[in-house]
Amino acid sequence: MNKNMYHFIKEKANQYHQETIAIRRDIHQYAERGWLEMRTACFIASYLEKLGYEVFVGEEIMKKESRMGLPSQAILQSHYQRAKVEGANSFYLEKVKEGMTGVAGILRNGEGPIIALRFDIDALGIIEDNNETHFPYQNHFESCHKGAMHACGHDGHTAIGLTTAKILMDIKEKMHGTIKLIFQPAEEGVRGAKCICESGFLDDVDYIYAAHIMPQSSNYDLYFGMNESFATTKLDVTYHGVSTHAAESPQFGKNALLSAANCILNLHSIPRNSDGQTRVNVGVVHAGTGRNVIPETAKLEIEVRGVTTELNRYMEMYARDIINASALMHDTVVEIKEMGKAYALKCDEDFMNEIRYLCQQNLTDLKLPKKNLSPLGGSDDFSYMMEYVQSHGGKATYMKLLTKVKASPHNTAFDFDEEVLNKGPRIMASIAYSLLK
Amino acid sequence: MNKNMYHFIKEKANQYHQETIAIRRDIHQYAERGWLEMRTACFIASYLEKLGYEVFVGEEIMKKESRMGLPSQAILQSHYQRAKVEGANSFYLEKVKEGMTGVAGILRNGEGPIIALRFDIDALGIIEDNNETHFPYQNHFESCHKGAMHACGHDGHTAIGLTTAKILMDIKEKMHGTIKLIFQPAEEGVRGAKCICESGFLDDVDYIYAAHIMPQSSNYDLYFGMNESFATTKLDVTYHGVSTHAAESPQFGKNALLSAANCILNLHSIPRNSDGQTRVNVGVVHAGTGRNVIPETAKLEIEVRGVTTELNRYMEMYARDIINASALMHDTVVEIKEMGKAYALKCDEDFMNEIRYLCQQNLTDLKLPKKNLSPLGGSDDFSYMMEYVQSHGGKATYMKLLTKVKASPHNTAFDFDEEVLNKGPRIMASIAYSLLK
Amino acid sequence: MNKNMYHFIKEKANQYHQETIAIRRDIHQYAERGWLEMRTACFIASYLEKLGYEVFVGEEIMKKESRMGLPSQAILQSHYQRAKVEGANSFYLEKVKEGMTGVAGILRNGEGPIIALRFDIDALGIIEDNNETHFPYQNHFESCHKGAMHACGHDGHTAIGLTTAKILMDIKEKMHGTIKLIFQPAEEGVRGAKCICESGFLDDVDYIYAAHIMPQSSNYDLYFGMNESFATTKLDVTYHGVSTHAAESPQFGKNALLSAANCILNLHSIPRNSDGQTRVNVGVVHAGTGRNVIPETAKLEIEVRGVTTELNRYMEMYARDIINASALMHDTVVEIKEMGKAYALKCDEDFMNEIRYLCQQNLTDLKLPKKNLSPLGGSDDFSYMMEYVQSHGGKATYMKLLTKVKASPHNTAFDFDEEVLNKGPRIMASIAYSLLK
Amino acid sequence: MNKNMYHFIKEKANQYHQETIAIRRDIHQYAERGWLEMRTACFIASYLEKLGYEVFVGEEIMKKESRMGLPSQAILQSHYQRAKVEGANSFYLEKVKEGMTGVAGILRNGEGPIIALRFDIDALGIIEDNNETHFPYQNHFESCHKGAMHACGHDGHTAIGLTTAKILMDIKEKMHGTIKLIFQPAEEGVRGAKCICESGFLDDVDYIYAAHIMPQSSNYDLYFGMNESFATTKLDVTYHGVSTHAAESPQFGKNALLSAANCILNLHSIPRNSDGQTRVNVGVVHAGTGRNVIPETAKLEIEVRGVTTELNRYMEMYARDIINASALMHDTVVEIKEMGKAYALKCDEDFMNEIRYLCQQNLTDLKLPKKNLSPLGGSDDFSYMMEYVQSHGGKATYMKLLTKVKASPHNTAFDFDEEVLNKGPRIMASIAYSLLK
Repeated sequence: MNKNMYHFIKEKANQYHQETIAIRRDIHQYAERGWLEMRTACFIASYLEKLGYEVFVGEEIMKKESRMGLPSQAILQSHYQRAKVEGANSFYLEKVKEGMTGVAGILRNGEGPIIALRFDIDALGIIEDNNETHFPYQNHFESCHKGAMHACGHDGHTAIGLTTAKILMDIKEKMHGTIKLIFQPAEEGVRGAKCICESGFLDDVDYIYAAHIMPQSSNYDLYFGMNESFATTKLDVTYHGVSTHAAESPQFGKNALLSAANCILNLHSIPRNSDGQTRVNVGVVHAGTGRNVIPETAKLEIEVRGVTTELNRYMEMYARDIINASALMHDTVVEIKEMGKAYALKCDEDFMNEIRYLCQQNLTDLKLPKKNLSPLGGSDDFSYMMEYVQSHGGKATYMKLLTKVKASPHNTAFDFDEEVLNKGPRIMASIAYSLLK
Repeated sequence: MNKNMYHFIKEKANQYHQETIAIRRDIHQYAERGWLEMRTACFIASYLEKLGYEVFVGEEIMKKESRMGLPSQAILQSHYQRAKVEGANSFYLEKVKEGMTGVAGILRNGEGPIIALRFDIDALGIIEDNNETHFPYQNHFESCHKGAMHACGHDGHTAIGLTTAKILMDIKEKMHGTIKLIFQPAEEGVRGAKCICESGFLDDVDYIYAAHIMPQSSNYDLYFGMNESFATTKLDVTYHGVSTHAAESPQFGKNALLSAANCILNLHSIPRNSDGQTRVNVGVVHAGTGRNVIPETAKLEIEVRGVTTELNRYMEMYARDIINASALMHDTVVEIKEMGKAYALKCDEDFMNEIRYLCQQNLTDLKLPKKNLSPLGGSDDFSYMMEYVQSHGGKATYMKLLTKVKASPHNTAFDFDEEVLNKGPRIMASIAYSLLK
Repeated sequence: MNKNMYHFIKEKANQYHQETIAIRRDIHQYAERGWLEMRTACFIASYLEKLGYEVFVGEEIMKKESRMGLPSQAILQSHYQRAKVEGANSFYLEKVKEGMTGVAGILRNGEGPIIALRFDIDALGIIEDNNETHFPYQNHFESCHKGAMHACGHDGHTAIGLTTAKILMDIKEKMHGTIKLIFQPAEEGVRGAKCICESGFLDDVDYIYAAHIMPQSSNYDLYFGMNESFATTKLDVTYHGVSTHAAESPQFGKNALLSAANCILNLHSIPRNSDGQTRVNVGVVHAGTGRNVIPETAKLEIEVRGVTTELNRYMEMYARDIINASALMHDTVVEIKEMGKAYALKCDEDFMNEIRYLCQQNLTDLKLPKKNLSPLGGSDDFSYMMEYVQSHGGKATYMKLLTKVKASPHNTAFDFDEEVLNKGPRIMASIAYSLLK
Repeated sequence: MNKNMYHFIKEKANQYHQETIAIRRDIHQYAERGWLEMRTACFIASYLEKLGYEVFVGEEIMKKESRMGLPSQAILQSHYQRAKVEGANSFYLEKVKEGMTGVAGILRNGEGPIIALRFDIDALGIIEDNNETHFPYQNHFESCHKGAMHACGHDGHTAIGLTTAKILMDIKEKMHGTIKLIFQPAEEGVRGAKCICESGFLDDVDYIYAAHIMPQSSNYDLYFGMNESFATTKLDVTYHGVSTHAAESPQFGKNALLSAANCILNLHSIPRNSDGQTRVNVGVVHAGTGRNVIPETAKLEIEVRGVTTELNRYMEMYARDIINASALMHDTVVEIKEMGKAYALKCDEDFMNEIRYLCQQNLTDLKLPKKNLSPLGGSDDFSYMMEYVQSHGGKATYMKLLTKVKASPHNTAFDFDEEVLNKGPRIMASIAYSLLK
């Protein structure tokens, strides 16, 4: 009977495959960056509403002031106009217009565990390849928003999420408990998870899981968890000095750029740590207004990382000392803004084993690896949700959905094999069923 | 009789004063930055043509490849369109469209000395004050080109130049020799003088002089020369590295920003020089594309200075070593572009005395200082022309035209008393007459 | 019968234990630093000679010019005098006087494998604790050479080596092949192994092994190999500039200290490497002669490390770029001297298993760990010999001899339990017998 | 009659010339560095005593705790032993033994002005040339104290001072007032003047003057004053961090050398000042104890200067900010010790004119320059005494005594023409007589 149900889920995933592909391509074409996923969010909300979900948008699942790395009002405003032009549902658009672009759907059927699935929905700030060999270009669904591109598979995640929603609604009566499907904005830059956690929406969750589309190096279909991720903190640092004419009276200036140069060099000289790998980068610097003027301001985009949350904390604390000391060095004033934060991933061993058992028993055509974990390498702020649910007594894991890809993630020519849009919803829905059956 | 002629010149300056003011306000309103003075240049050329001057434009007085600090093709192109819309003379516009915005008028009357007068015509990259107390705003001639403002008096210089042209034409028959009136582009950033020198246009000049409107601290009307200027070199430096993901494999990157930070700190640490004051500044830095990407390029706008040409050379040579070593330090490639150059001012003592004598004898209502020289403080690339003429056996001086000002030069609220537009043409024309009479 | 032989070795180790202790205490008392182990080397050579070994000293096993990090002639000379006073054998003393302090003994008995055992003999530059609770002080064998102390157990290694020599001579007839006992100078600073390799003394060796006394955290007696060591390169870097009076004419100087400061900061900013842990340190800096003089020279003692030989190479290559660029930065001249080098340890799996089998079968009272390898953490230039033998087709391992210690290695209060002087020779000799029986 | 007295002084200077030379050579041979002039001070005190002066030594004219840049107790002690062996007067030696090496002699004759003459007595830390062409070597009076050399003429100053004392005693009865002859220690490093000022010994002084032997570029005999000197502050800075093994756990260290490297680079990057020349130097750095140890301490010898006292204050304040910020940068603790201080020289115009008048009228064989002032270039802490006397209402000047020299001051081959030992006492005594006659 269970067997039959897993088989039913598989058939539904097959049946919906073309629609899933269509959704993915639509989302891909209208790629929107973090906090600007206005058309995307409205699309999701309308879709979930039509399926019969209770829909939660914007402030209903996000704490406004906990968002990090928000774009300017002018940018928010112009994207709002664009989303309107592009036909976003006007009811939902009003809810998301201030960059409140999170959406969730809830499905309840009596008593039982409360589980959450997370799908991230934002694009990257990349200009998409328009080469004949690029699949989205060939098939006319390349991004029509220049400078925004789904080069990390979140278009796929969104489509998988919506089809998962559809399948779960199909089998609603067979499950006992509550399912929260979370469509998270602004994962790039690890900015969006925090505000959902701090809204309280996850407080009662017993299980949370997510999956990321990843390049298939062996021929496995998935890993049950990830490790070797980086905890990370993103900081925007601005030095404010005093400008003056560089020839007439340099002594009356306070040189923000000298503070910045010290900051850059010294951040890179934070001692290596024998407890594990750490990272630091100053990725962007803008300073000064004219060649013959002592620079009044210097703005730096900084990130630190560590393979454990503790190592990241070591880096962040040391970096903050350097940032502050660099201001004192040339008598400037410094402003530090936290723009993003993620923890290191800690997947629950027994939850991964449970999913493994499910797959081995019921999804027998999948090719499974021997070990649960595969390294992530980078950072993901789903770690923030995991940490939150775990600290409230729940279980969490973050899986890898493996498929063939063109180019590597974050590359202008990135693309993935759409077969993953079939197995993705199937796996996500099967786990939900398994937890609530 | 001579006395009468100087009186005649004075009366002409009075007579033309309102027109001079009108020209100044027109130029002020259509402020154009260096190499973009297309409408301005066409205005000048047409005006000179109407007066009966032989007119030289663009390649006729400029060596194209000797221009420094040129804007991009896109900017040149859009300014060309704008100048067209704003009614620039289409014959001349074609000649200046590639940023070839220098203009000269020649007046010949038989054998005699060859003299040159220089007037600079470019505006600054400043957004003009739109405050009720700002005179150009009150009188509706504030800049209509946002981000370009005549905040250093070159609008006045242009108007003085054209009225001087008019007066000199009036007294043409009384003079023997040749007058070259040079309207120089791109003085700001000391970029424009070099290409005129290297065109050969000054090769036969016996005397060259110019004057700059300056704030009147005492109640003198002019100084006969300036000293204590800075020789200077402007360099644009770009470090090219290799970008890579900052977390995954930082070792595969080549960090252009680390090169830049070393360059900045070390430029400021060039040893002081016991031979006199020196300066160095890195005024603008832009580096990197994303927080989590090792910066691939870093662009710096640098200037060095010295109170003598030798001290500037010391600074430039040392700076170039540092710029190059900073590339080697982190295995990046560096590109150095010279964007401007000026020498220290050396006014000829006897030429200044000659002008003093002229003024004391014939322009007796002017208030004159006891000493010839007054400090400049900054840099001016008229020094380039002076050096050129002097090294070809001619004489040169650079005078101060003193008048009351609002705010200081390069300030968004800068303005000068338009009475200087009366005495300016009078003094410039009187000197020409005195040299050629 | 074999069993009996291992038992015989054990009994001999017991029998010689007091003598081993006496040797260790003598060596401890007359602690000598790297390349200065003149009394120590003569002691060893005489002892081996008395046992009947063929003795090789100085140039007979070392390539003179391959020694790294040699002290000055003056220091060599004064230590020679001291060794003479302290009764060093005058025949051998002449051979080691120039810092040629390596010694080897060879024992041959017919055809068979050629094996090598290495024991390091140098002390550290540390002032020994003279506290009542310090065992060597209590027992009157603390170092009489102020500033030299056996704080890393090499006194024990020397004693173990000589007793191993004695036992092996006792059982000579039972073994077929050749044994080379190598007493290596200057292991501290990883300076001494290279010159022995490059002398050709190891060219024909089939097996090489060594053991280091280490703190016992569990109650195991030994590990069969070590990993997680650092490959390392030690560099002495001297910047040569030009001094000048700092007030009168700073521009005529070339500031070696500015080169050094750049070098220091930038070495620490070498990017982290995702392939594994790396290290860099500038441990010692001396620069300049007077407060008001631009520093003419700056000397830096630098080391880089990596957990693999490749990672160390990455660090060394990057560091050399920085060192050279820092000279160019302020027009100084740089001199780089390689002072030491070690590779990462790679113990041969089957050789370790062979020793494990030997111990499990025949040294059954030893407490053995389940895994072969234990991390080293630091660096050891025995890696140089291992690499050399392995690249010539031989096998190698570097074992840990575990025992109780007071304080940690390199601490002024370090001491070890002398029971290790019993099991040490027993294990070393048993392995030799096992290989040659 | 006055004429006669100046003639008398001249004859006395001639008569004592050979003795003055002998004193100079003795002082040269027993050169002693700052605060260590124990034999020198005893020699002076005994000499003054024999002449009949009231003698003041050590605490009688110095405030002990106001001495700057004192050597260690061990060095003071060993120099005390040496001075004893070299026959220093034991009564005075006890007074100077703690580095209290200032001496003064007072000559009183009734009511009248109180004047002070200052002679500095310390040598430099330089190893004297022992070349056949070096005059002191030829004549067997080169320094017998290796590493101390009179390479700045203070041996001459001392000899001039004592002969001046002798002449003034000869003409005591002709003068009305009080003469204080001050023999100041530790001028090098500008360390000694402050403690004499703060003892109160100069509180009642009406005129103070001194003269320095200088290379004669023209053929003048003296300048009446000096300008263009540097005000200066000398700082010893020590960073205290935490050492740790550089490979095992670099994160537990606090790297004093990284603080030092930042300090060095940033001190050199203090902005140039349009008010005049400034200087900064880090002349000596010692850091760290071992290549593989994170440096626990780093000691820097720093000086800043400015051509006015205000410019020096600007430099010192900025430098102190940098020094402190560099500690915060890597979480080290910094200790700052003031080691010396001098002001910019401000010679009183009317006092210089008075001396000029005296020379023109009465020392008519001297060759005199037209202007009073000649640049010093460096720093001298006689400025401290001048400032002190001037702020108490007195007058001051610091003269140049010009003569031929070999090599430049502070060079190992420096030597001066001993003819200056004739005109020196004559000029110094003539001025005193002129003020008190």
